[in-house]
Amino acid sequence: MHHPFVDRLIERAQERDSRVIVGLDPNLEVFPHFLQERLRLEPTEANLEEILFDFNVAVIEASAASAVGFKPQAAFYEQYGLAGMKALYRTLTRLREMGELIILDAKRNDVSHTAEAYATAWLGARHPVFGTPNPWQADALTINGYLGADGIRPFLNVNPEAGLFVLAKTSNPSSGELQDLLLQDGFRVAEKMAQLAAAWGETAMGACGYANIGIVVGATYPEQAARLRQLAPHAPFLMPGIGAQGGSLQAVVAASGADQLGAYAASSRGVMYPFAPAALSGPEWRDAAHQAISRAAGELRLAIRQVLASKTR
Amino acid sequence: MHHPFVDRLIERAQERDSRVIVGLDPNLEVFPHFLQERLRLEPTEANLEEILFDFNVAVIEASAASAVGFKPQAAFYEQYGLAGMKALYRTLTRLREMGELIILDAKRNDVSHTAEAYATAWLGARHPVFGTPNPWQADALTINGYLGADGIRPFLNVNPEAGLFVLAKTSNPSSGELQDLLLQDGFRVAEKMAQLAAAWGETAMGACGYANIGIVVGATYPEQAARLRQLAPHAPFLMPGIGAQGGSLQAVVAASGADQLGAYAASSRGVMYPFAPAALSGPEWRDAAHQAISRAAGELRLAIRQVLASKTR
Repeated sequence: MHHPFVDRLIERAQERDSRVIVGLDPNLEVFPHFLQERLRLEPTEANLEEILFDFNVAVIEASAASAVGFKPQAAFYEQYGLAGMKALYRTLTRLREMGELIILDAKRNDVSHTAEAYATAWLGARHPVFGTPNPWQADALTINGYLGADGIRPFLNVNPEAGLFVLAKTSNPSSGELQDLLLQDGFRVAEKMAQLAAAWGETAMGACGYANIGIVVGATYPEQAARLRQLAPHAPFLMPGIGAQGGSLQAVVAASGADQLGAYAASSRGVMYPFAPAALSGPEWRDAAHQAISRAAGELRLAIRQVLASKTR
Repeated sequence: MHHPFVDRLIERAQERDSRVIVGLDPNLEVFPHFLQERLRLEPTEANLEEILFDFNVAVIEASAASAVGFKPQAAFYEQYGLAGMKALYRTLTRLREMGELIILDAKRNDVSHTAEAYATAWLGARHPVFGTPNPWQADALTINGYLGADGIRPFLNVNPEAGLFVLAKTSNPSSGELQDLLLQDGFRVAEKMAQLAAAWGETAMGACGYANIGIVVGATYPEQAARLRQLAPHAPFLMPGIGAQGGSLQAVVAASGADQLGAYAASSRGVMYPFAPAALSGPEWRDAAHQAISRAAGELRLAIRQVLASKTR
């Protein structure tokens, strides 16, 4: 691997002294009222695409200085049909132009040729027919490992430098229905998944000492996060659940390892929408949104730094 | 529920006396050479979309009489970028116009608002902004249940009539790495997933006696399929793995239940590409492809009928 995702992740975390991954989950209902009104006045596919992209750019510009990278959630684009897919296309292109790291949260999963097709779509450098640069190319992709190694290898085949995050213990309340079940060897299902991801990751180590295959671990389950860190010592952790879901920064820091570089807090709503939509009803929405988003991202970055520092002392 | 997916599935199976679900997995490399040449002569996004759609229409028209429904695999469209998504859009629209059942194989998974966004994208009747008919609306969707009930309920909320197929035991060689592991209560992970899906399905029963939530079970694992039938007696089974992967029709029939209506063989490559691409290098490709595909679909339908009949005798 030339310059694998995980090395770029760790470098960026050090450069910006941050552990924050900013979600990009467009939800028109909580957009600034000025943008909602712009869509009401001109309800077209082209205008919807423009507005989704416009708000994403505002979020990216306001938060990049505090962010290690960005995590667009595919579902929020798919829901808006082709306009959404075009907005995603433009958002990823813009992020790449800015040199920002992209973790596409799509939780894709399949095997063989089908998994390769997903990898081509979201991690491939070139369009498979035209050979042109792939506008949807992300640096890393979240995947669901329920299908085993057949569902991992093809993703690595298409682009060996791309990163993967395998779902281990998800942040939601019902995640335990399957993931917490005890296996006969004494491990839980989520722990077994982390072990599988760790084993797959041993074949894809970065120069930084972490693997190019990470795991997704909810910040809502601190004890399990600490346990998973032991089982997957070289896996970078992508940790959603901060904020609205009640996850703790302590969980992130506890899972970050001895070098404090192993865990990343993913925050979407808390950073993207730290304002009352109705308060942003004029054309000055951009400045007001910029201030609020910049502050929210900066505060999250600082809060994690403080917990990291208190752990070191 | 007014006329849920599962009732339409069973009705269609009886009408056409078939248990075949035809996959729609466009792969240009094995398309008739005439279509490949058409793209080489005019390598544009619009022409790619046209060719993908054109071949799908040929497959649909040739196989519909032998098929219970169609299963487009999302990955094969995503890999071609926007042209692929537009081809999917037109394919689903055409299938709905023809009254054909659509099971979108996308293995989506997430929770809460995010899962609702996926459901809006692929099962919703209307565009969430414009209120126009959603061209991507399928009748059923494959999902990955690793996240538990939080990852199922939102899909049911958006469209209670839509069907779901939860991955239980997948057809690939490495599926056992996680799915075959024994839990402390004596069940395997795949069996537990089937039990969860069955429990969720009890809240969504169709008039036909089957649940609107089915499971995906590889035809490559006959013994496990028979066991899962006992654990999820009312779940329709979507069974891939016939043909290239070595799955058996006997497995499908054994899992089909006493009324022989509970299991459906999903076949993609075997039905879509039963010809040598080079043999279809002229403009008469359509007639030749029609004959070959129609024969392949018809033979699969008949082969399953024969095994069903031999079981009855």
